[in-house]
Amino acid sequence: MKVAPPPAFLVDDLVRRALAEDLGRAGDITTDAVVDPLVTAAGRLVARQAGTLCGMDIARAVFTALDPELAFEAPAADGDPLSAGQLLARVAGRARSLLTAERTALNFVGHLSGVATATRRLVDAVAGTRATIVCTRKTIPGLRALQKYAVRCGGGANHRFGLDDAVLIKDNHLIAAGGVEPAVRRARECTGHLVKIECEVKNLGELDQALAAGVDVVLLDNMDPALLRASVARVGGRALTEASGGITLATVRSVAESGVDLISVGWITHSAPNLDVALDFEEPTTR
Amino acid sequence: MKVAPPPAFLVDDLVRRALAEDLGRAGDITTDAVVDPLVTAAGRLVARQAGTLCGMDIARAVFTALDPELAFEAPAADGDPLSAGQLLARVAGRARSLLTAERTALNFVGHLSGVATATRRLVDAVAGTRATIVCTRKTIPGLRALQKYAVRCGGGANHRFGLDDAVLIKDNHLIAAGGVEPAVRRARECTGHLVKIECEVKNLGELDQALAAGVDVVLLDNMDPALLRASVARVGGRALTEASGGITLATVRSVAESGVDLISVGWITHSAPNLDVALDFEEPTTR
Amino acid sequence: MKVAPPPAFLVDDLVRRALAEDLGRAGDITTDAVVDPLVTAAGRLVARQAGTLCGMDIARAVFTALDPELAFEAPAADGDPLSAGQLLARVAGRARSLLTAERTALNFVGHLSGVATATRRLVDAVAGTRATIVCTRKTIPGLRALQKYAVRCGGGANHRFGLDDAVLIKDNHLIAAGGVEPAVRRARECTGHLVKIECEVKNLGELDQALAAGVDVVLLDNMDPALLRASVARVGGRALTEASGGITLATVRSVAESGVDLISVGWITHSAPNLDVALDFEEPTTR
Amino acid sequence: MKVAPPPAFLVDDLVRRALAEDLGRAGDITTDAVVDPLVTAAGRLVARQAGTLCGMDIARAVFTALDPELAFEAPAADGDPLSAGQLLARVAGRARSLLTAERTALNFVGHLSGVATATRRLVDAVAGTRATIVCTRKTIPGLRALQKYAVRCGGGANHRFGLDDAVLIKDNHLIAAGGVEPAVRRARECTGHLVKIECEVKNLGELDQALAAGVDVVLLDNMDPALLRASVARVGGRALTEASGGITLATVRSVAESGVDLISVGWITHSAPNLDVALDFEEPTTR
Amino acid sequence: MKVAPPPAFLVDDLVRRALAEDLGRAGDITTDAVVDPLVTAAGRLVARQAGTLCGMDIARAVFTALDPELAFEAPAADGDPLSAGQLLARVAGRARSLLTAERTALNFVGHLSGVATATRRLVDAVAGTRATIVCTRKTIPGLRALQKYAVRCGGGANHRFGLDDAVLIKDNHLIAAGGVEPAVRRARECTGHLVKIECEVKNLGELDQALAAGVDVVLLDNMDPALLRASVARVGGRALTEASGGITLATVRSVAESGVDLISVGWITHSAPNLDVALDFEEPTTR
Amino acid sequence: MKVAPPPAFLVDDLVRRALAEDLGRAGDITTDAVVDPLVTAAGRLVARQAGTLCGMDIARAVFTALDPELAFEAPAADGDPLSAGQLLARVAGRARSLLTAERTALNFVGHLSGVATATRRLVDAVAGTRATIVCTRKTIPGLRALQKYAVRCGGGANHRFGLDDAVLIKDNHLIAAGGVEPAVRRARECTGHLVKIECEVKNLGELDQALAAGVDVVLLDNMDPALLRASVARVGGRALTEASGGITLATVRSVAESGVDLISVGWITHSAPNLDVALDFEEPTTR
Repeated sequence: MKVAPPPAFLVDDLVRRALAEDLGRAGDITTDAVVDPLVTAAGRLVARQAGTLCGMDIARAVFTALDPELAFEAPAADGDPLSAGQLLARVAGRARSLLTAERTALNFVGHLSGVATATRRLVDAVAGTRATIVCTRKTIPGLRALQKYAVRCGGGANHRFGLDDAVLIKDNHLIAAGGVEPAVRRARECTGHLVKIECEVKNLGELDQALAAGVDVVLLDNMDPALLRASVARVGGRALTEASGGITLATVRSVAESGVDLISVGWITHSAPNLDVALDFEEPTTR
Repeated sequence: MKVAPPPAFLVDDLVRRALAEDLGRAGDITTDAVVDPLVTAAGRLVARQAGTLCGMDIARAVFTALDPELAFEAPAADGDPLSAGQLLARVAGRARSLLTAERTALNFVGHLSGVATATRRLVDAVAGTRATIVCTRKTIPGLRALQKYAVRCGGGANHRFGLDDAVLIKDNHLIAAGGVEPAVRRARECTGHLVKIECEVKNLGELDQALAAGVDVVLLDNMDPALLRASVARVGGRALTEASGGITLATVRSVAESGVDLISVGWITHSAPNLDVALDFEEPTTR
Repeated sequence: MKVAPPPAFLVDDLVRRALAEDLGRAGDITTDAVVDPLVTAAGRLVARQAGTLCGMDIARAVFTALDPELAFEAPAADGDPLSAGQLLARVAGRARSLLTAERTALNFVGHLSGVATATRRLVDAVAGTRATIVCTRKTIPGLRALQKYAVRCGGGANHRFGLDDAVLIKDNHLIAAGGVEPAVRRARECTGHLVKIECEVKNLGELDQALAAGVDVVLLDNMDPALLRASVARVGGRALTEASGGITLATVRSVAESGVDLISVGWITHSAPNLDVALDFEEPTTR
Repeated sequence: MKVAPPPAFLVDDLVRRALAEDLGRAGDITTDAVVDPLVTAAGRLVARQAGTLCGMDIARAVFTALDPELAFEAPAADGDPLSAGQLLARVAGRARSLLTAERTALNFVGHLSGVATATRRLVDAVAGTRATIVCTRKTIPGLRALQKYAVRCGGGANHRFGLDDAVLIKDNHLIAAGGVEPAVRRARECTGHLVKIECEVKNLGELDQALAAGVDVVLLDNMDPALLRASVARVGGRALTEASGGITLATVRSVAESGVDLISVGWITHSAPNLDVALDFEEPTTR
Repeated sequence: MKVAPPPAFLVDDLVRRALAEDLGRAGDITTDAVVDPLVTAAGRLVARQAGTLCGMDIARAVFTALDPELAFEAPAADGDPLSAGQLLARVAGRARSLLTAERTALNFVGHLSGVATATRRLVDAVAGTRATIVCTRKTIPGLRALQKYAVRCGGGANHRFGLDDAVLIKDNHLIAAGGVEPAVRRARECTGHLVKIECEVKNLGELDQALAAGVDVVLLDNMDPALLRASVARVGGRALTEASGGITLATVRSVAESGVDLISVGWITHSAPNLDVALDFEEPTTR
Repeated sequence: MKVAPPPAFLVDDLVRRALAEDLGRAGDITTDAVVDPLVTAAGRLVARQAGTLCGMDIARAVFTALDPELAFEAPAADGDPLSAGQLLARVAGRARSLLTAERTALNFVGHLSGVATATRRLVDAVAGTRATIVCTRKTIPGLRALQKYAVRCGGGANHRFGLDDAVLIKDNHLIAAGGVEPAVRRARECTGHLVKIECEVKNLGELDQALAAGVDVVLLDNMDPALLRASVARVGGRALTEASGGITLATVRSVAESGVDLISVGWITHSAPNLDVALDFEEPTTR
């Protein structure tokens, strides 16, 4: 089934803010001065690079938020693999509206497709292992829900959306709480029955404590492949295992082959390069 | 003089939205459960990589928006060159507040320092030429003003902030307007006396038309170094010259040596990798 | 440890909206006309009924949002048991400010203490059993995070905060999905590793399917005590068990004695009567 | 004529906030995972209890805000008396949309119908007397305009909407102002010609002063029936009379029979129990 | 007593919007470039014209919203009569902050003092009569509450703040309702006991109907002095009388001498010329 | 070509705020009480005075924001010259909607047409000279973008929209910077290549410095016609020349005849009298 998009209210709010940021107080003064309001045009949204698509619904939202009469038809869908030159969508209507909305739409599609593409590369690299690629909270401020959607479009899965939807006990929490056992116990006492508990561990000793405390997931942070493998064996299915820490496209396969359930990667959201997309105009015509 | 930051209202709004995005409805359930409210702590914000710093004021705004009693002292300032391991700031106060605000602060500093660092590399690469590195409108939706500030911190300059603060006539505008002369004339008629006019040209013929029409800046798009050089010569100081189109760290010097005034680069805002920064906790203590 | 309150941004926004709703365009025209701005006063916030307190931080936020110079001292804390006549807080400062903020503060404290009190009565009624009282999504629109906090102050725990923080498969989902097994499988495939899955069952057959599918929690909806008891036995610790459906203060103990882990009750949030609190003014004095 | 609803902007804002509160960052993860986007369904909104209806327009706004293509037909209208089992509305369209919007719509209808029902019971109890049932400012924060509408749907009338639309001088104002006469005089001097003045009195002496000062309405607070009757007689039509203070369904008739014009009751807005309404799904079908 | 200002939330929101409107995305680029951040300065807010002051609290809010460390001391208060050259306030602190906030503060003070001054001239013109000058709903969009405050500072009083705080039946309502009697009856039935009813009348026949229907106020629209006088006589104290329609500074006295209670004038809010105020800088000094 | 309006998001936000300001919490209680919801009506928007029109799109936005089913047809367009009595638009639909939206629509059209009319008078007065009439930042808080649009509709042009879209160095900046040369140099260093620089000068000495520093525009503040003429001659086309300072309809021609390029006038935005427009209802009819 198609990956479900973020709530429409949230998307609409981001779209309006992005357009407002670009239009400022006076709007598109170039287009308003130079292009006759009666001229119509059509543009073809195309990928300039291969990758994985994300952002078609958002592009449609950008164009129609600016001008509800624009026609937007997208032969491609979020999650689709793309080849260079592939047609993503065709937009037609007032030339002014196309020109004014173009950059905002491209900024969304380029960024989100960049995230989806980076994710997909990691997902493909671990194909055949049990590992799922997951994102982190290392996201671009303001765009978290969209970036998490892009990760899903790239075949990855989502870690926490924020600080409030699961417990993740890290090293500083352990110091403050006085160890794994009291930290997990307090978390269980204070949170609801639908909240899972994950705990970071650095070695087999901490791992044993976390398993004894009954955590749902162990975060195996910055372990080398041998230690990862030993940790997975020690867990023996009593919890899910997540590897993290400086994992790259070059190293992800060896991490996955340790048998972990999850591999979390910050750079797919904080450092994914933009996918090059463009809007090529067909010849404008006077109405 | 220190680079001037964006208006505080705008920054505060972004900070609040970023914190709200992370805190959700229930807040930091891990920290609230595990860390005693009376425990205090101090953290050291450090760079894990060399680069150029951007985001100290924003980090301070994040921490104090969450807890006005946190003490934030920053020995480093935006625009400073960084070495790996360098101390950027020290934050002290309630351990809970530090833990809850940490990720949001790091996300801002890492992203903006990434933009500043990418810019600075290009700026250093063209040192000794007349070229200034400038950004574009290819920005992350919602973060444009902050990214433009980061570009300035990296030693670059800003192009338009949006569609409303200068005229930039591109190829599609030219088609719609019927050529350079009518396009520039209409732009001059319709915009105020403080609005500059820039026009994209693809060859010497278009360049001559643009100069004849009296534009302030010519955008020399996707020209090879020879054509760039010829164009700069043809302009002869009658307008500013801007080169753009697929310019990388490897090619920027040769572009600059053509004698252009400005080199615009989209990837410093849409694809700059995050600079690795972290918050290292000193040992927490009970109040 | 003290129950952690909702994020401050969220509370502040609700406080400002509530004050704006009461002040309208012209403000407190009675007080502004009748009370001299130099008169000071002090008021004692007191409970007129026994119950459980919730809302002290919010009351403080109301008074200081209106007038930062008001002094607010609260000998009582959220979660405290109250007797009729008990002093909750003392507020002192400009008489105008006290009079203008009074009703908004009381509306919050009365409502939230009502929720906490209703919850506490149920919690006390099941004392000695393993059952935890939990709330539902049947909340007053706009106040969910505050009401969930009030439930915690009353000794209860929280179910989902919204549609996005856990999976709860109900009868209509089962019909649409074609049964328990495919529904749970799809949920597991589409959601992250930190998301728990709860499934509603109406009889032992559905219960067996849910357990076979590996759900984390079973929702035993509208079962009589005998069937509840049989269900708990059948589960045998393989999942958490939640009872729901028309449970009252009169019936809650018998439900709890079935051995269920959780009892969810909608009326503690949608129908809890207000706890009677008042602000008694001490004699005003001229500055 | 139909009771006029609150301004649409205000309702739309509340609807969006309520949906956003429920959808969070990730939306309805259960429905998105389990229900195919092509499945359609229809649901019947029914009353499970007798009472008075309020919220049909708001329910429609909830469903169509989430999905403008949902069809919503309501045979019942706000203000209608309801019997248990009565059909209120039928909603049809995408099964996903129905399931996602269901709880938010029910929370509004259940709460507002609860307010209307409580009001109607009091209105019926005083039938044949001259008394009108009115609400107070003791409302649920954020919902005042909707609750005041529900009171009108229940046959009651509205007191002040806030602090700015009429003068109501209470005991603390009287202390601060130095008595009835100066308080009323100042109120008249400071407020516009369309602002009415009401003054609380506790005994016949204060009543005489208020009448002498020319108030429009006297608030007879916490008086027993005999004193109420004497007060009404003393007023003799020179002002409207309002009774208030701890009035219940059991006592309201005797209060009304004192001849007062208005009876104000706080609990119809702060403590009205939810009216039980539900959305029964008809069998879903694949498109 | 000092005229009470509008609610602070409302003022703060307007101040922030006004500053944001002026600062845009990049802030005060002139000042940031040209003025050293360490330079301090002081400015004297002075009136260039005689008139009536309004806006000191708002000016303070503008300066301190931009820079909380600015010192703002105002020897003059809202409502004060001004002579040309009079010192209104002194602001001191960072030169940058003074220069950036200057225009926004002056725009508020100039406009609101303009409204107060226009009002005061009318008030003085009718001195000794019973007439009060009142404003209308013909206000500048977005500024109504501030303008109504300025009218009060000028010695006038306020008519309705909006469509919801009193009933005003105009000619088009009368046509739709079928006459004065049914219109007033319906208004009384549908609105609360604290809502006054005013009705527009054009001649003595309509006036008699309105009085018979028991309205609180009659609006005598566009009547000449003789008809006004006759109308006031006919009313004989049974209602308040308001004259309106094209009243100027030249004609207001003759209108007032007809004996009406109220004279409403639209142009004091929609067309009041700005009062000339300026910020004169004292010599800046380096910190 | 038609003058381009401000961005629609910005207009829609102002329209909603204006309607919300008028509707308050309870809406149009007069119309809701008195006018049957089934009655339809039509109104004719007419000018009562000659002038220049501005606000037709905004009036349409007001009416349709309140009721999307209203039909709004405007034979006149923004920028059109108007004669007294001229039909501007016809609105038809529910009588209630017409009556409720009327005042808000008229307030926008009257104010903006007032600005356009004042501008047009100045523009006509300088016809045949090279001077363009421009506005300033002396605008009504919150309405700047609309007022600047109205100036364009009146045949004028816009100066800066805010502090961020051009550099304007005034006397206080010069004092702080230590003179014209350093001020202009710093401005050039700190701002982008599309930002123009204007500098205020008071005499020929300062003018020479500004020209030497290479400014784009000189602001000739408060000069008499002789000095203006001398200044224009001295500039000799090396920069644009702008005259400002107390220019009235009586003096503007003599200023223009000095040969300046631009004449800036604050009162067209801060003190333009409202243009009298009205909505005349045709006879309502029952549906």
